[in-house]
Amino acid sequence: MSGPARATAHASSRAAVLDVIRAAGTISRVGLVNATGFTGATISTVVRRLIDDGLVVETGRAESTGGKRRVLLQLNQSSRYAVGVHLDHAGLTYVLTNLGGSVVARMTRAGAGAEDPPTVVARMAAEVDALIDGVGVGRDRVLGLGLVSPGPLSPASGMRLTPPMMRRWEDFPLDEALRDATGLPVVFDNDATAAALGEHWSGGVGGASTFAALYMGTGIGAGLMIDGMTYRGAGGNAGEIGHSCLAVDGPECWCGARGCVEALAGPAAVVAAARADEVLARAAGLDGSPGSPRRASVTADFAAVTRAARRGEPGARALLERSARYLAVAARTLANVMDLELLVLTGPGLAIAGSVYLPVVQEELDRAFFSRATHSVDVRLSRSAATAPAIGAAAMVLQSELVPLRQGPRLPENLADSEPVTVRQAGA
Amino acid sequence: MSGPARATAHASSRAAVLDVIRAAGTISRVGLVNATGFTGATISTVVRRLIDDGLVVETGRAESTGGKRRVLLQLNQSSRYAVGVHLDHAGLTYVLTNLGGSVVARMTRAGAGAEDPPTVVARMAAEVDALIDGVGVGRDRVLGLGLVSPGPLSPASGMRLTPPMMRRWEDFPLDEALRDATGLPVVFDNDATAAALGEHWSGGVGGASTFAALYMGTGIGAGLMIDGMTYRGAGGNAGEIGHSCLAVDGPECWCGARGCVEALAGPAAVVAAARADEVLARAAGLDGSPGSPRRASVTADFAAVTRAARRGEPGARALLERSARYLAVAARTLANVMDLELLVLTGPGLAIAGSVYLPVVQEELDRAFFSRATHSVDVRLSRSAATAPAIGAAAMVLQSELVPLRQGPRLPENLADSEPVTVRQAGA
Repeated sequence: MSGPARATAHASSRAAVLDVIRAAGTISRVGLVNATGFTGATISTVVRRLIDDGLVVETGRAESTGGKRRVLLQLNQSSRYAVGVHLDHAGLTYVLTNLGGSVVARMTRAGAGAEDPPTVVARMAAEVDALIDGVGVGRDRVLGLGLVSPGPLSPASGMRLTPPMMRRWEDFPLDEALRDATGLPVVFDNDATAAALGEHWSGGVGGASTFAALYMGTGIGAGLMIDGMTYRGAGGNAGEIGHSCLAVDGPECWCGARGCVEALAGPAAVVAAARADEVLARAAGLDGSPGSPRRASVTADFAAVTRAARRGEPGARALLERSARYLAVAARTLANVMDLELLVLTGPGLAIAGSVYLPVVQEELDRAFFSRATHSVDVRLSRSAATAPAIGAAAMVLQSELVPLRQGPRLPENLADSEPVTVRQAGA
Repeated sequence: MSGPARATAHASSRAAVLDVIRAAGTISRVGLVNATGFTGATISTVVRRLIDDGLVVETGRAESTGGKRRVLLQLNQSSRYAVGVHLDHAGLTYVLTNLGGSVVARMTRAGAGAEDPPTVVARMAAEVDALIDGVGVGRDRVLGLGLVSPGPLSPASGMRLTPPMMRRWEDFPLDEALRDATGLPVVFDNDATAAALGEHWSGGVGGASTFAALYMGTGIGAGLMIDGMTYRGAGGNAGEIGHSCLAVDGPECWCGARGCVEALAGPAAVVAAARADEVLARAAGLDGSPGSPRRASVTADFAAVTRAARRGEPGARALLERSARYLAVAARTLANVMDLELLVLTGPGLAIAGSVYLPVVQEELDRAFFSRATHSVDVRLSRSAATAPAIGAAAMVLQSELVPLRQGPRLPENLADSEPVTVRQAGA
């Protein structure tokens, strides 16, 4: 960005400092002054409070550069935890992360499907208990729960204009219900935005602080990260590239417009086209014949089409490539509008079929990105495409520690960092 | 934006403070602490330097709120000036603004047209002299010259991949040549981005700090303003909505892609379609018949089509409405990606035909903006659509005072503020 940067409010100096320490790994107070632009006095005060609250520890001294050797600071990773939940029609993905955003436990369960919202919420509360108990973290160290789901959302009042498969959630006060059921503070966001944050925190984008996450779950969207912050727009629904128009007289979309990328290229469109082709439907096991499995979601059917393509089924391959070309054109629009250098392909749909989409999107951007004479756009397939939204959901909670949700406990001791625990699904 | 805000660098605290004073009109030091989040000590230091440099003056005291009455600060508007130049094929627009961004002189001249770049630069230098001399401002008070032109640009090395009518500028080191010819520091940007900044500084968007300026000049683009800062993207070419695709098999665009909004709906496409219609071409005076004037630019021809539409010529009206519908769909994509609340229609093309485009764009966003259940998008036609890019160009210079281009002179006296002077065109 150019122009005079708006200064940050006092309340977020803690946020900024904590985030710089997290990103740096270890850093001195002088390093923090340089990285944040805050005065030495401000840094001293903020750091003292972070140490008092147990979030940051001193960890030896830097190599001398002639003067006094500087004390290094780092996050106390195991001082706090956060739960991230990605709720979709097709699946529920849970992660527990430590203060640094590292995943210490993950699990996936059946999605919202056709269950009533209160039933799903009760199940989620039990599954969150299982997640936390499975790692043996004291509940008083869990800062809160981040919940993300398909947009557009109104954070103040649960979902609005929900995608067609989640219509029954439209007026349900999800955040409130989940807060009551779990006893945890709940923050709430759009899954595509959370996916971008998840990519940022999980290190999937290296050190990049400005990029877009092109997201395919049940629908298509994008999350935008600008200078290390998620860009949310006026109502928290920025990045809705899935409803940009690629054909003014194209098919009607559930959103009310015509020729949307999602209607032309989304998993539901791919699955519908596969079902309409008798040979392909049989080959992919979508024809409802006795041998074909019953699947609960578009995502599962989309995975079946992808498997058929991998087996060399030409109809399946052609459908995915057509979808990829549309997604690539949408990616180009997004890259043109944001003047991107980096685009990450993420979300459950791209966790399934990303290897088909990646080369098509990269080729389109190499060929037709408007500013290609100035710089190229690097397209990457996320290494955590299926869990990025849940990781981002947990990161939202960690970020809001920065403007605390509640008084955190003072913690004298550290839990040792350990490998992620996979919580086994009961009855699976 | 959510998440921890990155703190500003030391160097831009001056920028931030000056911009807050500008936006507020008058403000106390305590007000600055509240507005910027900087400490009182930082504000004291920055303000003292701004006063020493003559950029800010003390101006009486605020009403008492019980304690000591606070000294108010305001910009010393006439302490510095900036030149803004908008260079396009169709026209050259110049403004001289004071430190507050108010236009004190403006003039328009023939565009780049078919002239060689060095010839145009020599003319521009003479025209800038005329602009400054016409107001009687000492040259030592002119901070610099902002130059904006159609993108994509590479600020380091002049234009790249220029639009078809300005191909001869491709490898010309415009910024350097203009700096040598005028003796002024030159900053350089994309005209659509500058238009957004111009709308922000000229008050055309009220207090809004996040919005997009949908720009139609010779081409179509957009400038993005996020939290009071222009968002420029990786290469300074953010907002290129004119090259988003509305028809994957549509007509080829000069940029190398197919079905771009600009190729379908831009002024050049409208003029080409008008020329291809014999009746309409005659009615609009585009047929080269003895009575029809010779025009130097697409913009002039586009104005002729617009006048024909205003006279009730049905073919002209239909062409503009078709263009408006395409632009409206592009506006919807932009609004969806940025989750906009405010979209300003600006640029020379919309200065000419904006009244046709405004209702079509507003209708499209009311009907099909993805998050319409959450909030609406306010579409406005700029009151300074023709000069917004030049005003933004000058504002870029004023902003870079914030990280000074050169040592400013110390100025004991003020010039009185006055109405804008229109410099008459020699020989016009």
